[in-house]
Amino acid sequence: MKICFRNASLLDMVQGMQIKENMQVWTEDGKISFVGTDASAELFLRENDVTFQRIVDCKNNLLMPGFKNAHTHSAMTFLRSKADNLPLQEWLNHLVFPAEAKLSEKDIYALTKLGILEYLQSGITGICEMYLTPDSIAAACVDMGMRCTLTGGVNNFSQSVDDLKRWNKELNKMNELIRFVPGFHAEYTCDKSLLCEIAGLAEELKTPVFAHVSETRKEVEECIARYGMTPVAFLDSLGMFRYGGCGYHLVHLQEDDYEILKKRGVYAVTNPASNLKLASGIAPVSRMLKEGIPVAIGTDGPASNNALDFFREMYLVSALAKVREEDPSAVSGEEVLVMACKNGAYACATPDSDCIAPGKNADMVLIDLTQPNMRPLHNIVDNLVYAGSKINVKLTMVAGRILYEDGVFYTGTEQEEIYEEAERIANRILG
Amino acid sequence: MKICFRNASLLDMVQGMQIKENMQVWTEDGKISFVGTDASAELFLRENDVTFQRIVDCKNNLLMPGFKNAHTHSAMTFLRSKADNLPLQEWLNHLVFPAEAKLSEKDIYALTKLGILEYLQSGITGICEMYLTPDSIAAACVDMGMRCTLTGGVNNFSQSVDDLKRWNKELNKMNELIRFVPGFHAEYTCDKSLLCEIAGLAEELKTPVFAHVSETRKEVEECIARYGMTPVAFLDSLGMFRYGGCGYHLVHLQEDDYEILKKRGVYAVTNPASNLKLASGIAPVSRMLKEGIPVAIGTDGPASNNALDFFREMYLVSALAKVREEDPSAVSGEEVLVMACKNGAYACATPDSDCIAPGKNADMVLIDLTQPNMRPLHNIVDNLVYAGSKINVKLTMVAGRILYEDGVFYTGTEQEEIYEEAERIANRILG
Repeated sequence: MKICFRNASLLDMVQGMQIKENMQVWTEDGKISFVGTDASAELFLRENDVTFQRIVDCKNNLLMPGFKNAHTHSAMTFLRSKADNLPLQEWLNHLVFPAEAKLSEKDIYALTKLGILEYLQSGITGICEMYLTPDSIAAACVDMGMRCTLTGGVNNFSQSVDDLKRWNKELNKMNELIRFVPGFHAEYTCDKSLLCEIAGLAEELKTPVFAHVSETRKEVEECIARYGMTPVAFLDSLGMFRYGGCGYHLVHLQEDDYEILKKRGVYAVTNPASNLKLASGIAPVSRMLKEGIPVAIGTDGPASNNALDFFREMYLVSALAKVREEDPSAVSGEEVLVMACKNGAYACATPDSDCIAPGKNADMVLIDLTQPNMRPLHNIVDNLVYAGSKINVKLTMVAGRILYEDGVFYTGTEQEEIYEEAERIANRILG
Repeated sequence: MKICFRNASLLDMVQGMQIKENMQVWTEDGKISFVGTDASAELFLRENDVTFQRIVDCKNNLLMPGFKNAHTHSAMTFLRSKADNLPLQEWLNHLVFPAEAKLSEKDIYALTKLGILEYLQSGITGICEMYLTPDSIAAACVDMGMRCTLTGGVNNFSQSVDDLKRWNKELNKMNELIRFVPGFHAEYTCDKSLLCEIAGLAEELKTPVFAHVSETRKEVEECIARYGMTPVAFLDSLGMFRYGGCGYHLVHLQEDDYEILKKRGVYAVTNPASNLKLASGIAPVSRMLKEGIPVAIGTDGPASNNALDFFREMYLVSALAKVREEDPSAVSGEEVLVMACKNGAYACATPDSDCIAPGKNADMVLIDLTQPNMRPLHNIVDNLVYAGSKINVKLTMVAGRILYEDGVFYTGTEQEEIYEEAERIANRILG
């Protein structure tokens, strides 16, 4: 499948944030095969025999790398707006965990598909997924054409280090859309012996590790009471992040934590909407950037957000940093877009999705600049971060396949079928 | 013009938040003429001769009162993403005021139109507008079909109490879409003598007064230094709010302020996105509700937001209250929707736009429940507030006229023409 995008305003993000006009991008077999001016492309085409299956006239709209949702639990769609107004621990123990206990692999497959529709509509081309049944989540993503990095959510009650080993072996060769990186739920749901085992696996495989870390003040206080160290310091003391990884949330950090995260090259994945809604706090994103810690962005699951809207997350990353630091210059639009597109790709262990250049993954989004929220056009990057909306997503392409265009999904599954299945599961479990 | 909406899921908001299925709503001459079940309507139509110019099949989507944007400066569209990363006072004095000095009445007419497009796309059916030239703003709203309550922005440098008198007389009889309520910019831009004059006018006309109040900590501290009182207490001591009014922002309140606001029946208009972006703070919305102060919601202008997206504002009102109070049960979705639809109508002095019932203004919005962010459907109110997006706005009707439907504007002005004019003005003024 060879597709040509012409007449594009291109934000390739190879270097800096310069937008180039009248550009052309070709995709082939899931990769980007050409990037150049319309003029140079036309010249080449006049002299060479190239056939495209589709030519997309971008009409000067903005072609850019897709957003990477670096932390989510997609199948929690079934709990959307059914678990509001509760603090994290109560929310987890009294509502989420009992409901999740009733989920089958097949349920999670179906509910993940609902999440994927929302991602595509929001310009998300890759997700990092931590949930109960990686196999069926991977199947849902492959069937819909979505790029997905899976991680384990090992804890005292479900999943095991053996599961991590198996997934690491099997899922990493399952499909080019799928990656697996070992992970566990959080310090507070894992015994020390279990955590040591996971750290041992990380050493054995020389792999990064993903986990929820320092999401709430309570979590940090209890870890200090238990081990005399913050979660960041304690996990590091076990050798957990020797090969890097992702720390989800990282809302409550203490002075020494920054140094550890930086030294270990851990990606801080911030989830601002979820942290607000569960009243967990506002992450110190500005400080993390100053310390040189790479930050990526996640929606978290739809039970705690309740949307999977990357425009909302991007706005919040910047706006919350400003109010937290009482400094309106904290965390610029450009910095947020780097987190959303590039850092997200690295955090998800899919570095080839970071920018638009020949040989890179064809994971792109076409942004509609003809909507009123994008006008005037004097600063498109800030328009995107501070005023962007799902309404601006004209087209979402993952691995060279157009999965969403002008409000219509091309994922191989009927939208209505996904909705009906999700309602059925939600009704069965929640009554 | 007689229009029939059939097959609606109806959130009429007459009382509570119950959604009724298979409902029908008729509009005629700008008003709602009938609300009942589809069955009762069909029965009536069989026996009576009624001709509709248009029948809208809602297909079980949600018909509800439109959102009221209770504080904005629409024409600041020209500064969108051109004034980012600055604190309020610097932003006002070094960027906004000098740029605004170059605006003509005609410019403001044109720039307001751009704002109106964005409102309609976000389901906003009424705005409260404070900007330099109320006459040309009113003209833009009438020409586009938008409902607008105007207020004055009197200060030491522009507008006068005589202007307020004239606008109050002329604009209140200009058009049924237009209202005027006297107002001034803020305590810190008005001498005491000017404020006394405005309070005198309020007494003379027995009218509410609208103003920015206690937006920043600096403003409050300086007012205390100047007069020994908070802005709320000082303005009250002049008799400013004897007939109620609107206080915009109200981010930094002291203990006695709550009592004064409540006693005077002042509407607190909260502008969460703007307060974040300018790093002004998070308003004590939860406390205001507990004290019985009515709260409405505004986007503020697009220079400080930078969007005019009511879904973002609604989400923020609730989510920021949760993180501010460290209480995930603070400010529910239902409370937010009451602020957005009903309180907004009262704050804007357009009480007949508060709900969907016979005789009320036909200011409604049709919400698309077939988008993935609305599924499952178990709690539509929370879905709207916590997951809603412009993408869910199928149709926006103001005063019985459909001004936006399925992505197309029907405002009597070409969209492209509005964009070109806005770019021209922005380039002229900002270079």
